[in-house]
Amino acid sequence: MSSSSPALDVAMAYYNAWTSQDMDLAMSYFADDVVCDAPAGRIEGTAAYRDFLGPFTQILQSAELIAAFGDDTKAVLIYDTRTLPVDSAPGAECLTVTNGKIVYNRFIFDRLPFEQARNPAN
Amino acid sequence: MSSSSPALDVAMAYYNAWTSQDMDLAMSYFADDVVCDAPAGRIEGTAAYRDFLGPFTQILQSAELIAAFGDDTKAVLIYDTRTLPVDSAPGAECLTVTNGKIVYNRFIFDRLPFEQARNPAN
Repeated sequence: MSSSSPALDVAMAYYNAWTSQDMDLAMSYFADDVVCDAPAGRIEGTAAYRDFLGPFTQILQSAELIAAFGDDTKAVLIYDTRTLPVDSAPGAECLTVTNGKIVYNRFIFDRLPFEQARNPAN
Repeated sequence: MSSSSPALDVAMAYYNAWTSQDMDLAMSYFADDVVCDAPAGRIEGTAAYRDFLGPFTQILQSAELIAAFGDDTKAVLIYDTRTLPVDSAPGAECLTVTNGKIVYNRFIFDRLPFEQARNPAN
């Protein structure tokens, strides 16, 4: 399901760190000026990225990798997560790696079940 | 950004077909008993899959492939789409291919902006 690559090695190290709720280690794989296009909009810099992903790791119960591919500069991770509010919350990340650091991430997941968990009336 | 593979060849043919709004051609790449885990739940069989994806192609204005990887049996596509209700609606598909046909797809996208476009009050 995966073929090793320089970008994938970094992506997997990041994935293993954040799914283990080790945000210090996870953030060590990012360039300081990382840009992430996430469902709610663009995130710039490691502090903002940590504010985005850190709270999610607090509600994360388990993660299961579905697919991981990469080449020299780009890696894709597809996974499912079980979280406190949402039983199955899959995600996709497409990471660009330069000089061993993640410089860009396109992050895709469905916000709707989280929104519904917050506002059951909707 | 991509490395050729048997699964990726089928995935790309399917992607090129549906993003060209050719649902007849797109569906020709699926096994009759395809299973798709989509944000709203499980879809089973080609008729249900067509009912799921066909309406989306009607609001599709353009699609841009971001990443495509695959091996013998699995392919991953990451792309952005521009649609009538939502300017940027990225998607991720993780397709399993057996005997030249797509037998399974894990389909990830954010339903929230489409829900908000339908119900602006939310």
